[in-house]
Amino acid sequence: MQIDLNSDLGESFGPWTMGDDATMLSLVNSANIACGGHASDPETMYKTLSLAKQHGVMVGAHPGYNDREGFGRRVIPMAPDEIGRMVAAQIGALVSVAALVPVKVRYVKPHGALGNLAARDPDVACAIAGTILKIDPTLAVLAISGTCLEHAASDAGLTVFSEIFADRGYLSTGQLVPRGTPGAMIHDAEEAAARLLAFLKSGKMPVIDGDPIPLAAHSICVHGDGPAAVAMAREIRQRLEADGVTVSAFLNP
Amino acid sequence: MQIDLNSDLGESFGPWTMGDDATMLSLVNSANIACGGHASDPETMYKTLSLAKQHGVMVGAHPGYNDREGFGRRVIPMAPDEIGRMVAAQIGALVSVAALVPVKVRYVKPHGALGNLAARDPDVACAIAGTILKIDPTLAVLAISGTCLEHAASDAGLTVFSEIFADRGYLSTGQLVPRGTPGAMIHDAEEAAARLLAFLKSGKMPVIDGDPIPLAAHSICVHGDGPAAVAMAREIRQRLEADGVTVSAFLNP
Amino acid sequence: MQIDLNSDLGESFGPWTMGDDATMLSLVNSANIACGGHASDPETMYKTLSLAKQHGVMVGAHPGYNDREGFGRRVIPMAPDEIGRMVAAQIGALVSVAALVPVKVRYVKPHGALGNLAARDPDVACAIAGTILKIDPTLAVLAISGTCLEHAASDAGLTVFSEIFADRGYLSTGQLVPRGTPGAMIHDAEEAAARLLAFLKSGKMPVIDGDPIPLAAHSICVHGDGPAAVAMAREIRQRLEADGVTVSAFLNP
Amino acid sequence: MQIDLNSDLGESFGPWTMGDDATMLSLVNSANIACGGHASDPETMYKTLSLAKQHGVMVGAHPGYNDREGFGRRVIPMAPDEIGRMVAAQIGALVSVAALVPVKVRYVKPHGALGNLAARDPDVACAIAGTILKIDPTLAVLAISGTCLEHAASDAGLTVFSEIFADRGYLSTGQLVPRGTPGAMIHDAEEAAARLLAFLKSGKMPVIDGDPIPLAAHSICVHGDGPAAVAMAREIRQRLEADGVTVSAFLNP
Repeated sequence: MQIDLNSDLGESFGPWTMGDDATMLSLVNSANIACGGHASDPETMYKTLSLAKQHGVMVGAHPGYNDREGFGRRVIPMAPDEIGRMVAAQIGALVSVAALVPVKVRYVKPHGALGNLAARDPDVACAIAGTILKIDPTLAVLAISGTCLEHAASDAGLTVFSEIFADRGYLSTGQLVPRGTPGAMIHDAEEAAARLLAFLKSGKMPVIDGDPIPLAAHSICVHGDGPAAVAMAREIRQRLEADGVTVSAFLNP
Repeated sequence: MQIDLNSDLGESFGPWTMGDDATMLSLVNSANIACGGHASDPETMYKTLSLAKQHGVMVGAHPGYNDREGFGRRVIPMAPDEIGRMVAAQIGALVSVAALVPVKVRYVKPHGALGNLAARDPDVACAIAGTILKIDPTLAVLAISGTCLEHAASDAGLTVFSEIFADRGYLSTGQLVPRGTPGAMIHDAEEAAARLLAFLKSGKMPVIDGDPIPLAAHSICVHGDGPAAVAMAREIRQRLEADGVTVSAFLNP
Repeated sequence: MQIDLNSDLGESFGPWTMGDDATMLSLVNSANIACGGHASDPETMYKTLSLAKQHGVMVGAHPGYNDREGFGRRVIPMAPDEIGRMVAAQIGALVSVAALVPVKVRYVKPHGALGNLAARDPDVACAIAGTILKIDPTLAVLAISGTCLEHAASDAGLTVFSEIFADRGYLSTGQLVPRGTPGAMIHDAEEAAARLLAFLKSGKMPVIDGDPIPLAAHSICVHGDGPAAVAMAREIRQRLEADGVTVSAFLNP
Repeated sequence: MQIDLNSDLGESFGPWTMGDDATMLSLVNSANIACGGHASDPETMYKTLSLAKQHGVMVGAHPGYNDREGFGRRVIPMAPDEIGRMVAAQIGALVSVAALVPVKVRYVKPHGALGNLAARDPDVACAIAGTILKIDPTLAVLAISGTCLEHAASDAGLTVFSEIFADRGYLSTGQLVPRGTPGAMIHDAEEAAARLLAFLKSGKMPVIDGDPIPLAAHSICVHGDGPAAVAMAREIRQRLEADGVTVSAFLNP
């Protein structure tokens, strides 16, 4: 049994800090690092990438809408090709700042509203996959199993890894229980860890509306902001390791 | 006799247009393309890079301060290392958008206040040269002969090309006559062309305070904005070609 | 017969120019001035307000989404109250810069995607009207007759003036023919002027799908960007004045 | 004995939080509220203004350079008149958002690098004072005694209040000990409180290079960010009140 832990990090901006990146980087194996779109700036990228390297954590690009005020959580109307260009510029920015550390960016995971759109819109998914392919075909994609992004990246010939969420409930369709609905969020760290362990042992994820379902997962996404996030990440890592799960990155950093 | 013509292009932003890039790209051989700092955005980068490729024009990165309101003409106080990181992010953005075209970014020329600072401040010059070296050591640098940037890039082992200005007067020190001083600007296209031709034939540039001085030059910088800029670029190109000068890029596009 | 001509002006930004404001200000009576959201900055506001004052042109605030890259033409998902606060900040900025000229801001007309949303969404219309009322109840609203914004502003007790478009076709519902549909745009200046004159004489606007309809109009909106826009504004003004229409602002500047 | 406590608040931005405004607003009497330049946005302004009103805290505008990445701590080269226009737009934004609460903005205190420049540059001070006068002559100015801003505001006929710093050492010239120099910062809350009390009783401020000097002070500035800032503000307030000092705003909220 082996699994990766990933988290969205490097989401500070200028004088403003978000999350406890230093602690999170001691708990996760993969860091989805903001690229100056929904968050971050060259200094923040450099600091986060340097810290990730010190911790031996693999780094990925985490592009999002150019919308700091909305933190990339709002859909900004854009044509798929425009999204492809925006994503290219962000990945390129992170890759070049990473060259200063130096550390290699290994994968891409879109952020927030862009990630949600890429999961359900085949044209957007295709634009993002095509962009990654043209920038660097050795970049992997971290996506949710069964989404448009997973299919588009796979069709483009990119390496795809799939992720599940530590703190979210699932439906028997494999989709997440929508936020605001009962069962959407799992707040208790022990419960989250127990569920993940059951999943890793059985290959089946509990759902709120039926029997556990088979789900592909190379990585578990844990949140990176707030003290509760750190506590949950710590609990999950400890429980998984205590039960003999190898917690390690899905690629070499 | 061979020389390149370069111009700052791709400096539109969102709905706003600057200059007549399409015409300029039919006149110059090298395009210094804004990278989203002092101007541009991913759409503008993509359009400009595509147009440059269509015209067979070599492309370079033209990073500047992240200051659209000031168009990169104001010095924003930053430590040299911060400048290096900012420049890295901008070059990376352009390089990745260029990969979508695809076209290869061949060189770097800093813009405006950043260019002026890199010319006179060895630490800033060194930070920029070091950044370029780490991102891609095959990227050349386009600099003014005798400046800190030329020395730093050369010391770093980067390929350096030097430029002169079509519409600026020179001092016997090799420096430009400061703007606002008599002789600083050459507004007449014929006069500019005649001076350049004299320089190309003799290797010596006329100055306002003494005898012509020897000056290294692989490229002539012409302005890209305004109808007068287009007229001057056209006049210079025609006059140089009419006198047997080969006008071509200093590297293969 | 009396009517006002209004145009969106002051939409430059930093080093970038949009439209020929100086000429347009010699042709219109009311200037809808960008407030730093979709376009403009304090310098541009000040210059435009000063120029408007010189021409005796009445000034209004033209708030839009904080989205320069999209020029306020994209809907940014926001709650109505958030829109109200955004609009407040923009109107306040313009009003205070106007105090430096000094000139008085007399009305508000929302821009682009925000204007379209305020026309069809009663909650957004209400948030904007409520904001204007709290900032300054003597500010008028310039809206399209029959829209949610007209109703909300009127219900709030604000003075409302209605506008028609010089270069757009109408449906028998009173709505504009959607862009991209035959009859949506009127490109010919003479045709546009003739239609407006017919409307002013009869009180009825020609439509593409039936008999002319009665329409309220205190002002005609003409575009402010591009040489064709200037030519159309000039033609309309000349034709209206030649036919005895008094072209003047709907309020004292 | 009466004195005000002021603090820089409302410096969050979009998803990023700075400081513990709710707690600080229970400790200070005057809040210098960011206006969307160096920090804040319409939502943050509205929340901070609403919270200040709930706590009965007087509000002032805290304009700074339009430089979120640098948090207004970098001098952006601008002509004095440009600064005046920038400050006008920011004050106007805050005043209009305040009208939605509703609460009245009573004074202006420039932030960071802009505040430092206004203290030492008479042209900048004059531009800011002139701007405030034209926007609303009933707005007061909060400045350091003896600075250019104090003089310019006073000469313009504005009401001026002066402030001292709780955590900074003074020179016998009345100026602050420069940061990075021994004695510049007072980190110990008890020491800071004791010094302030001594000053309030004697009217003389201890300095590091001579005998205590007379200093005018209507308000004590305490920092608003970080747990240490809250602790120091609390200690100062408690000690002053315990010693019979009336801690209250210099104007009615």
